[in-house]
Amino acid sequence: MADAARSVTLAYFRTDQLATENKLNEGFDPVTRADREAEQAMRGILAERRPDDAILGEEFGAQAGTSGLTWVLDPIDGTRGFMSGTPTWGVLIAVSDAHGPFYGVIDQPFIGERFIGGFGEAHYSGPHRTGALGVRKTQDLADAVVFTTFPEIGTAQEGAAFHRVAAEAKLVRYGMDCYAYALLAAGQIDLVIEAGLQSYDIQAPIAVIQAAGGVVTNWQGKPAHEGGQVLAAATPALHATVLKLLAST
Amino acid sequence: MADAARSVTLAYFRTDQLATENKLNEGFDPVTRADREAEQAMRGILAERRPDDAILGEEFGAQAGTSGLTWVLDPIDGTRGFMSGTPTWGVLIAVSDAHGPFYGVIDQPFIGERFIGGFGEAHYSGPHRTGALGVRKTQDLADAVVFTTFPEIGTAQEGAAFHRVAAEAKLVRYGMDCYAYALLAAGQIDLVIEAGLQSYDIQAPIAVIQAAGGVVTNWQGKPAHEGGQVLAAATPALHATVLKLLAST
Repeated sequence: MADAARSVTLAYFRTDQLATENKLNEGFDPVTRADREAEQAMRGILAERRPDDAILGEEFGAQAGTSGLTWVLDPIDGTRGFMSGTPTWGVLIAVSDAHGPFYGVIDQPFIGERFIGGFGEAHYSGPHRTGALGVRKTQDLADAVVFTTFPEIGTAQEGAAFHRVAAEAKLVRYGMDCYAYALLAAGQIDLVIEAGLQSYDIQAPIAVIQAAGGVVTNWQGKPAHEGGQVLAAATPALHATVLKLLAST
Repeated sequence: MADAARSVTLAYFRTDQLATENKLNEGFDPVTRADREAEQAMRGILAERRPDDAILGEEFGAQAGTSGLTWVLDPIDGTRGFMSGTPTWGVLIAVSDAHGPFYGVIDQPFIGERFIGGFGEAHYSGPHRTGALGVRKTQDLADAVVFTTFPEIGTAQEGAAFHRVAAEAKLVRYGMDCYAYALLAAGQIDLVIEAGLQSYDIQAPIAVIQAAGGVVTNWQGKPAHEGGQVLAAATPALHATVLKLLAST
């Protein structure tokens, strides 16, 4: 499924058509087309191979199933990054049961990187390396690198909570969408904090990060797979520190 | 020189050493080492091939020359992105005379992308395509995609000026360092606005963007190759509109 989505998205990403005819200014059509066609390609594979499973996709919504399993699909996470030519959008695929996602893939087609996690194993493949994924051991917020996509994160109250954490971190960076979760699983950064997410934005990251040894919950420390506020941390100690800061007012 | 810097930087970027021993938390040493060794590799080539040219590098400063030409080097532009594992840092190489840079390279080693501009030609090579670089034709700010690296851009006054522009643009994105200039030259975005830059941050982007058909000045419409405030635009019309907004109070 990730391979199929890769072919579709790369056929649209940074196409000369976009560059020379400037179609982006006539609405987000090429991006929307890439989004829809990539999800269709993945749904086509599921229809053939897993007809009894449910599907929840960003573009075509929910399809009921009878197996108790649900495939959660975001064909292009980071459409604004996609339409800007940045290489940090991703294809997200997760499989969940009643307890949440237990297997997930974050795929970056342009660079050719794939981050996979589930069943206690996390795996990376990319242009320069293939091997295991594992989080860092960072314990203190003062040593932590924090990512979020938008500086104006969530509501005013959510933004204030985020900036309480940011003020005590070593470094804050913006604008990476799902790629930030991949970097956390890969042991490159320590925290990702976001708000206003959909379930299809976060289920694959949850599976990948948990398999790599990290912790993902909402800002109340509860399961995050329904979306909303998300706190992803490299270690339980870091997670506990940040949870307290997010909750204080 | 770009090939030489590529070898050095990739030997340090996302190394297992960094990931497993968490050396980043003992200061920025591995990044500093990568920065210094990459500049040394480039200076070594210049010492052999262009001994009469001057050099200005981020890490080892200025070296006088007699030819009237200066090589301007930033071995890792975006060290914070580099230490966070993001693939949007770059190696910057420019050659300048008394009038400013006339040839430049923006190289992204991890993805394997190279953006070159000079002598009226701009060229791209990357994992999926090789060919000419050219800016978009966007005329109106309402259609423009704007990038800057830090939301808290420059001084309070500079920040206010940036946000006057951002408020009228179609989309604003953060956190790409020199990669944003490369995307502008590649016809993917329309504006990059920054403040507080050094000459070695901007000389290569100037050469690449100008060769691709774009406009780069400071916020007063004057040459930007000494650093400071930078406005890079896809078209003269867009440049003029934004210049007015940045100047108004």
